[in-house]
Amino acid sequence: MAEVGRHHAERTKRAPTKLGIVGAGSVGSSLAYAALIRNSADQIALFDRHAAKVKAEVLDLAHGTPYTGTTQVSGGTDLDQLAGSDVVVVTAGAKQHPGQSRLELAGANTALLRGLMPQLVACAPDAIFLVITNPADVLTVVVQRYAALPPNRVFSTGTVLDSSRLQWMLARAAGVAVASVHAMIVGEHGDSQFPLWSGARIGPVAAREWAPAGRAKFRPEELDDIAAAVRGAAARVIAGKGATNYAIGLSAARVVEAVLKDEHAVLPVSSTLSGYHGLSGIALSVPTVVGAEGILRVVDTPMDDQEIALLHRSAGALRDTLRSMKST
Amino acid sequence: MAEVGRHHAERTKRAPTKLGIVGAGSVGSSLAYAALIRNSADQIALFDRHAAKVKAEVLDLAHGTPYTGTTQVSGGTDLDQLAGSDVVVVTAGAKQHPGQSRLELAGANTALLRGLMPQLVACAPDAIFLVITNPADVLTVVVQRYAALPPNRVFSTGTVLDSSRLQWMLARAAGVAVASVHAMIVGEHGDSQFPLWSGARIGPVAAREWAPAGRAKFRPEELDDIAAAVRGAAARVIAGKGATNYAIGLSAARVVEAVLKDEHAVLPVSSTLSGYHGLSGIALSVPTVVGAEGILRVVDTPMDDQEIALLHRSAGALRDTLRSMKST
Amino acid sequence: MAEVGRHHAERTKRAPTKLGIVGAGSVGSSLAYAALIRNSADQIALFDRHAAKVKAEVLDLAHGTPYTGTTQVSGGTDLDQLAGSDVVVVTAGAKQHPGQSRLELAGANTALLRGLMPQLVACAPDAIFLVITNPADVLTVVVQRYAALPPNRVFSTGTVLDSSRLQWMLARAAGVAVASVHAMIVGEHGDSQFPLWSGARIGPVAAREWAPAGRAKFRPEELDDIAAAVRGAAARVIAGKGATNYAIGLSAARVVEAVLKDEHAVLPVSSTLSGYHGLSGIALSVPTVVGAEGILRVVDTPMDDQEIALLHRSAGALRDTLRSMKST
Amino acid sequence: MAEVGRHHAERTKRAPTKLGIVGAGSVGSSLAYAALIRNSADQIALFDRHAAKVKAEVLDLAHGTPYTGTTQVSGGTDLDQLAGSDVVVVTAGAKQHPGQSRLELAGANTALLRGLMPQLVACAPDAIFLVITNPADVLTVVVQRYAALPPNRVFSTGTVLDSSRLQWMLARAAGVAVASVHAMIVGEHGDSQFPLWSGARIGPVAAREWAPAGRAKFRPEELDDIAAAVRGAAARVIAGKGATNYAIGLSAARVVEAVLKDEHAVLPVSSTLSGYHGLSGIALSVPTVVGAEGILRVVDTPMDDQEIALLHRSAGALRDTLRSMKST
Repeated sequence: MAEVGRHHAERTKRAPTKLGIVGAGSVGSSLAYAALIRNSADQIALFDRHAAKVKAEVLDLAHGTPYTGTTQVSGGTDLDQLAGSDVVVVTAGAKQHPGQSRLELAGANTALLRGLMPQLVACAPDAIFLVITNPADVLTVVVQRYAALPPNRVFSTGTVLDSSRLQWMLARAAGVAVASVHAMIVGEHGDSQFPLWSGARIGPVAAREWAPAGRAKFRPEELDDIAAAVRGAAARVIAGKGATNYAIGLSAARVVEAVLKDEHAVLPVSSTLSGYHGLSGIALSVPTVVGAEGILRVVDTPMDDQEIALLHRSAGALRDTLRSMKST
Repeated sequence: MAEVGRHHAERTKRAPTKLGIVGAGSVGSSLAYAALIRNSADQIALFDRHAAKVKAEVLDLAHGTPYTGTTQVSGGTDLDQLAGSDVVVVTAGAKQHPGQSRLELAGANTALLRGLMPQLVACAPDAIFLVITNPADVLTVVVQRYAALPPNRVFSTGTVLDSSRLQWMLARAAGVAVASVHAMIVGEHGDSQFPLWSGARIGPVAAREWAPAGRAKFRPEELDDIAAAVRGAAARVIAGKGATNYAIGLSAARVVEAVLKDEHAVLPVSSTLSGYHGLSGIALSVPTVVGAEGILRVVDTPMDDQEIALLHRSAGALRDTLRSMKST
Repeated sequence: MAEVGRHHAERTKRAPTKLGIVGAGSVGSSLAYAALIRNSADQIALFDRHAAKVKAEVLDLAHGTPYTGTTQVSGGTDLDQLAGSDVVVVTAGAKQHPGQSRLELAGANTALLRGLMPQLVACAPDAIFLVITNPADVLTVVVQRYAALPPNRVFSTGTVLDSSRLQWMLARAAGVAVASVHAMIVGEHGDSQFPLWSGARIGPVAAREWAPAGRAKFRPEELDDIAAAVRGAAARVIAGKGATNYAIGLSAARVVEAVLKDEHAVLPVSSTLSGYHGLSGIALSVPTVVGAEGILRVVDTPMDDQEIALLHRSAGALRDTLRSMKST
Repeated sequence: MAEVGRHHAERTKRAPTKLGIVGAGSVGSSLAYAALIRNSADQIALFDRHAAKVKAEVLDLAHGTPYTGTTQVSGGTDLDQLAGSDVVVVTAGAKQHPGQSRLELAGANTALLRGLMPQLVACAPDAIFLVITNPADVLTVVVQRYAALPPNRVFSTGTVLDSSRLQWMLARAAGVAVASVHAMIVGEHGDSQFPLWSGARIGPVAAREWAPAGRAKFRPEELDDIAAAVRGAAARVIAGKGATNYAIGLSAARVVEAVLKDEHAVLPVSSTLSGYHGLSGIALSVPTVVGAEGILRVVDTPMDDQEIALLHRSAGALRDTLRSMKST
């Protein structure tokens, strides 16, 4: 074959978009699977300490690529696999066991990430870091410190997952397509989370004003029940299958795409706040504009008095955890 | 080759989903192109009276299908092409010329559809009929009468197109992804249309409360300017290229998918109203749940006093046209 | 809200396309995940005997749907979940353990499916049945008998999975996109499988004639090594992660789509043969046209002498298994 | 809103992928429409000398983007619109009129591109240039010279379009999905083109050996008729609608994606050959590996004696045109 590539050594070749994933467990590999099928990035690389496991996951994923698009997948036990990543999603760590609170995970996973983050940053110095490891809000603050990166480059999917649960439940209750439901969970990715009902809409109608077909509008306790079901959803899934992986895989793929395509999407990710409704130095999920630089803006969102109280309660829970972690 | 198909004559084979398009002009063929690329239906059929034109459009579309999905396209001058359609989109008719008001088109296109609709219904008796021909609101009322079908089965894309223009402009002004903008134009698909600002949201923030990066929140006159730009958008496009076809093709594909996939999507389509904020017997775009049965529900949408006044003004304009059409 | 749905009781509403999945293990749930993201069907239903498990998988999948398309997912322990399915994919059964041959699985899984198939057919009498449970070829013959259905309605993904592995490896070796590699594994979905090299193409060039960039064309032993790597791929993946699920999930979704969209795609699925290169009464993967009726045609495929010998060797291995199963 | 973007000035932000289109006529705008719906690039820019036309096309395209993905579209009369393009598709020029041969267009369009190409290269110095203007093969040679770029960076969609027509016709004749048809037209994008039957496959079966359902295999004259229909397809479409735009729009989008995603896809694009089956200095479509560098390799493709004769006849026709153009 005639080679023609030598004439143009001077041309600047564009680097492919790359998604790095730390941890080839069920969350990391489900994210990779979703991202392959959706073509979220040009390249996906999995990193894990367990050689046999990560190689097997990469092979299993790669074997399916003739039926997906053009995304390539690779991986291994060498951190260099992550070199050149535009986004690194951190899924490594102990996972939440049935009955265990998310906050109880903090100690073990902090210790793990303290060692890992500087290596990841050395390996992918231009990356945006997306933390999925739980407790996500606590670890976001901790990881940002260990990574020595600005807050816009280290954040968590936070309540993006909880919001998708809310949207799914609300769509069913309202009798409409989930794409017509605009609603968010904010606060902690954990028990103190809450829906931002004041801003929730079904089409252009306030969720609180929506009347399902043939009946009167939602009663407050109906919406409270939905919020409680969202709050308890992770525990329910974990009780039945030992983990959650599919919905978090899609949620993470969604956030990754917002970064890689510089979408400026408004998503409830969790980042270290600075003067947000009076809160600083802790990470909570609130409406945030996400793009190529990671977090472009934390959105000043009007909340009613009850919502502000709930946000501060959520902040208090996290602050307590961070404080008790320091003292140990 | 061994034939194995004879064993199972008794099995009920599912019919493919079918989109029929009346009119192979730039709107009809752009809709077909968009629907092919998006795989909106299993089959697309174009009908037009001009044999050479419709055959050429079908061939040009079909020649591209190796690079799209599995949707098949066919067409011709025989109404039987449309048999079995689940949705029939009516694009036939004179188009709006520069300087001409949408309402002035009414006479000519009414005459055309009076003859055509009964034939279309005979040909595709189970179809949902989507009217794109302008003036869309007037023709929706007229077509429903000629077709002798219930209001849920005859409606127009209405301000789905205008709403997409609003969302695009608002996204640019706000500095966010268009997917994070939830806003609708309602009323007439024409000069008396207006944005439903009271329900418009950017993420969970009211559009009227949104502050673009580094500045104060939108001033009322900025939003008025956007509304005016939306209202004038069709005329601007027509002045430059003689017609609009691309955005209306996508808007129609969007509504078609809501029907074929039974989405229950909330969209501002235009259907004959019955006791909506006091309006009956005219068609206007308002938030509506769209699914396999066409219009599933017209949504009782709270509006502020100004919006209700604008809605009634829009209704008045349409009522005048319908009345003057009857008297001629 | 104004209800408009009562006018049109006479209209024939199209049933949504439905994919039923038997077994909510890692294969069944990975298939559901892939099918959700790809929108392979309008509805997906999972059936499994383990209530907590299947409910948890369905919830985890459903929670991700706000980030996918319009496909709905449901499931439970009641076979009625599968009612109305157009395709039922059978993944239930013991899975292959490291070191265990696929043929050794036959006894246990045959016993399971003997009881299950008549119930499945009663539940979804119009469905196409796709067998993934291993050993797939043996079970295809057995299941067809228990289901009392014609051969076109009961088949296995067979070497669709192995072919994707071959395509991926060949694409890497050739230095081209996997979409430009046209190659198939045929025969047993197991150790006696083989590539149909005589028909394999890279672009329009015979695979055997392809020269990677800057070197001579593939040597026969290079192609043999690739075939061996494909044959050993499942074992390698199972050794590392205990199962395969991602690639088989995508392979099954691919075949399901060929049925639901009536694609007439040529795929190496495994069905009970009747006079194919002299073979009858056993199931092997060979090029087959797949559409809404399941198997439309088994394609009379020219093979060279060596390939015919390998096909008969593959058939012999299966015949031995079927015979020894009868005698027990 | 809290601005967080200032902390990280040092980070290297990835540039979005950009498709530049020269000419906002029906081909250029259809390509833009297809590329928007397919999300072929992050950004699309249209350039045209006619201000009102290009602005109207851009607006009409942009108004549809709320119903597509994240691709942005812009454009105008200023060449700077194209700055930073990764691929520039050249559609400008007089188009083929009914009865006019493609070769007769050469003079006018050569004159146009002689002036334009150096400006385009100055504006987008790293771009790959894809020529659609006809006669495409002649102009590819000419444009490469005017652009002073290596052959890998200047090529034409060539017979990618004709090949899609062949695949569509062959799929219908064979009764299979177009995705299962692997066949190419090579040679001139014009009357002397021909199918590479020796390499054509339906599934793994040689096209010449394929027997449609219930009948004997294709007769040679049937395949000749298909080849003739492909050759005459452009004229047929032009006779009916005055131009071709939809299939060429998709064909160009397909090639653009191969470049932007560095696919290494084997496509019959037309580039200036150098010692290919004895041909040099002219451009013809032959199997070619396309990726981020444009043409990665022209593939040494085995052809039978008749095919080689046809290739040389095609080359002769082009050489005559190039020679007569020089002498004028």
